[in-house]
Amino acid sequence: MCVQPESSDRLALGLDFGTESVRALLVDLKGTERSSSAVKYEHGSITETLPTTGEMLPPDFALQHPGDWVEASCQAVRDALEQAGLTTGDPTAAVVSIGVDFTSCTMLPARADGTPLCLCDEYIGEKYAWPKLWKHHGAKTQTDRINQLARERNEPWLKHYGGVIGLEWFFPKVLETLEKAPRIYDETDVWLEGGDWYVWQLIGADQPVPRSTCIAGYKAMWSAEDSYPSPGFFKALHPKMANVVKDKMPGTLIAPGRPAGTLCATMAKQMNLCAGIPVSAAIIDAHAGVPGVGVGEPNTLVMVMGTSSCHMLMHNEAVEVPGVAGIVKDGILPGYIGYETGQAAVGDAFDWLRRMLNHDSFDTLTKQAMTVPPGCQGVTCVDWFNGCRTPLMDGTLTGAFTGLTLNHHAGHMFRSLLEASAYGVRWIVEVLEAGGVPVDRFVATGGLPHQSPLLMQVYADVLAKPVMVPGTRQGPALGSAILGVLAAGEAVSGFASTSDAVKAMAGHMEKTTYTPNDAVKSAYDQAYHRYRLQVDRIADK
Amino acid sequence: MCVQPESSDRLALGLDFGTESVRALLVDLKGTERSSSAVKYEHGSITETLPTTGEMLPPDFALQHPGDWVEASCQAVRDALEQAGLTTGDPTAAVVSIGVDFTSCTMLPARADGTPLCLCDEYIGEKYAWPKLWKHHGAKTQTDRINQLARERNEPWLKHYGGVIGLEWFFPKVLETLEKAPRIYDETDVWLEGGDWYVWQLIGADQPVPRSTCIAGYKAMWSAEDSYPSPGFFKALHPKMANVVKDKMPGTLIAPGRPAGTLCATMAKQMNLCAGIPVSAAIIDAHAGVPGVGVGEPNTLVMVMGTSSCHMLMHNEAVEVPGVAGIVKDGILPGYIGYETGQAAVGDAFDWLRRMLNHDSFDTLTKQAMTVPPGCQGVTCVDWFNGCRTPLMDGTLTGAFTGLTLNHHAGHMFRSLLEASAYGVRWIVEVLEAGGVPVDRFVATGGLPHQSPLLMQVYADVLAKPVMVPGTRQGPALGSAILGVLAAGEAVSGFASTSDAVKAMAGHMEKTTYTPNDAVKSAYDQAYHRYRLQVDRIADK
Repeated sequence: MCVQPESSDRLALGLDFGTESVRALLVDLKGTERSSSAVKYEHGSITETLPTTGEMLPPDFALQHPGDWVEASCQAVRDALEQAGLTTGDPTAAVVSIGVDFTSCTMLPARADGTPLCLCDEYIGEKYAWPKLWKHHGAKTQTDRINQLARERNEPWLKHYGGVIGLEWFFPKVLETLEKAPRIYDETDVWLEGGDWYVWQLIGADQPVPRSTCIAGYKAMWSAEDSYPSPGFFKALHPKMANVVKDKMPGTLIAPGRPAGTLCATMAKQMNLCAGIPVSAAIIDAHAGVPGVGVGEPNTLVMVMGTSSCHMLMHNEAVEVPGVAGIVKDGILPGYIGYETGQAAVGDAFDWLRRMLNHDSFDTLTKQAMTVPPGCQGVTCVDWFNGCRTPLMDGTLTGAFTGLTLNHHAGHMFRSLLEASAYGVRWIVEVLEAGGVPVDRFVATGGLPHQSPLLMQVYADVLAKPVMVPGTRQGPALGSAILGVLAAGEAVSGFASTSDAVKAMAGHMEKTTYTPNDAVKSAYDQAYHRYRLQVDRIADK
Repeated sequence: MCVQPESSDRLALGLDFGTESVRALLVDLKGTERSSSAVKYEHGSITETLPTTGEMLPPDFALQHPGDWVEASCQAVRDALEQAGLTTGDPTAAVVSIGVDFTSCTMLPARADGTPLCLCDEYIGEKYAWPKLWKHHGAKTQTDRINQLARERNEPWLKHYGGVIGLEWFFPKVLETLEKAPRIYDETDVWLEGGDWYVWQLIGADQPVPRSTCIAGYKAMWSAEDSYPSPGFFKALHPKMANVVKDKMPGTLIAPGRPAGTLCATMAKQMNLCAGIPVSAAIIDAHAGVPGVGVGEPNTLVMVMGTSSCHMLMHNEAVEVPGVAGIVKDGILPGYIGYETGQAAVGDAFDWLRRMLNHDSFDTLTKQAMTVPPGCQGVTCVDWFNGCRTPLMDGTLTGAFTGLTLNHHAGHMFRSLLEASAYGVRWIVEVLEAGGVPVDRFVATGGLPHQSPLLMQVYADVLAKPVMVPGTRQGPALGSAILGVLAAGEAVSGFASTSDAVKAMAGHMEKTTYTPNDAVKSAYDQAYHRYRLQVDRIADK
């Protein structure tokens, strides 16, 4: 039996879907964490073989199992409830809202009833029926053709994305499927984002498909003014795609922080929750991090640093900035223009190099890197090991280590990668500021900033600005919880505005601030110059 | 008591001075090895601190201890004699000749009596008084100025060296000392090569300094026609150097294979040998490898592969080839023009990468490299980790790994380095052939070819020609033994010509031939094209 609880006991549930695991966070409306649980996906990122058939996947493939999203999230919610002492009966009614953030563009084909095609017997062995993870890179030629056609037709939406759309986005992945597995395209009733699919499951598949304006705006060339690209564009791209939006993308566009519906009985049962709890539309995981670290003001760059980095910034005006991937009105928080930039390999690259250099942990490499002076004695790394997101938006670009001599060692390799990551941010800041968007403050969040004080000091030194690291490791989860509360409405939350909610629930957290060291500025300036030269050489393929 | 032995018992002693150790080889006049002993230098390559004072050395320094050369070589000779059962009395008389090869340009300042300045009490703590090892890279600016001045003055000797002289050569190192430690320059009576110094020690310091025409021709801009560069050139370079040749380079120029003198009593005693044995003038270690592997004919590239690689080839005509470091008449064997080319980091680079990748041996890396297809799936290495010798002759150039993605692993890094080494040879061959010097056959010798069949197969595949690896690991030592025999004269050896001696003493050895695999040719052609593009980018600093 579900009874409305006292206001002091009201809890918000935030669900944060990452690349390898999902986290459930229970937090009260003052921002105090009650409990948290992370559960790994059984199949993780699927990059080697298809789980059902064992078929070897091409090297640019990265898939996920939609069953993992449901199984792992329900487990995480049950764990979090248990940790919070909310195991049976009324106490579960304390949960008053659900917010969801998700990796993007992670997308899939589904039946009209919400069943993912890859879970239908007839498609279970067909790799193109599976959800494509954000870092799936199978749509290279399709991306090129979309960009070329858009430029030829001077498509109005192109300017929102710095003049080029990305390899990892929604329509390249749709077109890839159409061309590589036309039967899958034909049999798909609903193409949609993983985050939208999950919220649809939460509210019940009898409801209209709840499509996030944030995700559509950042990954599917949608805008409030112009909707999706026109049928004329899609027809020119591929005759069968002319009506892809009308025929295969049903649903309602809803902003994060607005209600998508309420928790259905089926999912409520699996989560040990009450049916009827308000559910917000989904938001991209990185974007949830902005309110999640207490940032409600413009011109602060929030760097969400995990396997990859997504950097977000709000600004009062919409300015076209060449090379900036997503400029979306209300794309992060209402009232501001959201600017999204990113780096495609950060923690992924650190981990890859650690394995390459045959170390079990980062301890020794970090110690060795600290013996190397800023600028790495001439070694320059270009960190494009998973392509370049901002500002070149080219997933086919590759990484490099240059300037190496027999006098260098593993510490130089590792430090040069940390520095490259910082130079990448500095470049992004220069691109934004040259485009008229000032970057006044830096906040670093996600898993990495807590793991490497050295990395954060390098960032502060290279950017020549303080970098603030919030104490929470759960920025996106807290941000999605805040958006869930907003979706539940003022009557439930008592918050009159978005910024009130951000301030109340994420304004008091502990933080560490890394301060730039003036003594190393010129060494980093020189090394950054070398980095930009290398970058130009590699980009000039 | 020393008695002339029967001819069937006559043995030739070859001494091969490498970077870390010296080898003594005893071989009879039919080429049958009697014994061999390698002894490490106590101080090895001195690159970190000065042994006498503990002073930290600059990063581009590489020195050696002259006492090591004497101590280690005498030990090696005593060991070899003992192994051959020639420990006491008459049997030692079986040794009829001594030949010496040495790394080059390894050079030092000495007193008129042969004492190295670094062994004099007043200079023992002065780093510029020590022998500079071939790979000492302290003379960058001096090399630049020598090249610039030579071009301005259109010096006639420049054409023998492809239009540019190298960072590691003799006069850059002299000028470096003059500029950095003028007192050392002033106090030097004799500037000379390590190989010449050692032969001088063998024959007695009361003899004229025996200077090798091979070493002078390849490392000190000397030629039989024009001698050294003119006093006018040296004066323009530095007023104090005007008469460097006349005042500080006394001695007699002698070709390898011609007698420098006979073994003096002092050294004979330390070696357990008889005084009076004929001693040949020194030869560069790599050059000794040519006769040492039985190559007496023109247009065979002999690749001497160790820490670095030196590739030599004889040709009937003198042709100016831009980028080829040394074109010296009779520079390898009498009657041919010797062409010397090289790669500055080969075994050194493999070992450096192995340590960087944190492996105790090459076993696992080799296995991993063998799982990677030819062309390394897009990874390109430029192997300039110790600069580029041929064809750019620029010790300041640096190495790189490019084309890297998260899908690559340590096996790609290692294989890309092996491939880069092969591409470097292919480039050298293209430079020679474009200059009118055909390369018909390939012989690989030195330590590396025996350690890595994978490396040799990559060479054969990349060059698209068979690569022959002689069974002996002692090519230079055997070559210097042959040159010693030639110096002893026909009356002792019975050989009427150089080629007779080469054929008799090095013509019957076992060999392994690596045959190119046609199936991988196009993959390597493409990857070589990528390598050349990267090389151009790095060279275009």
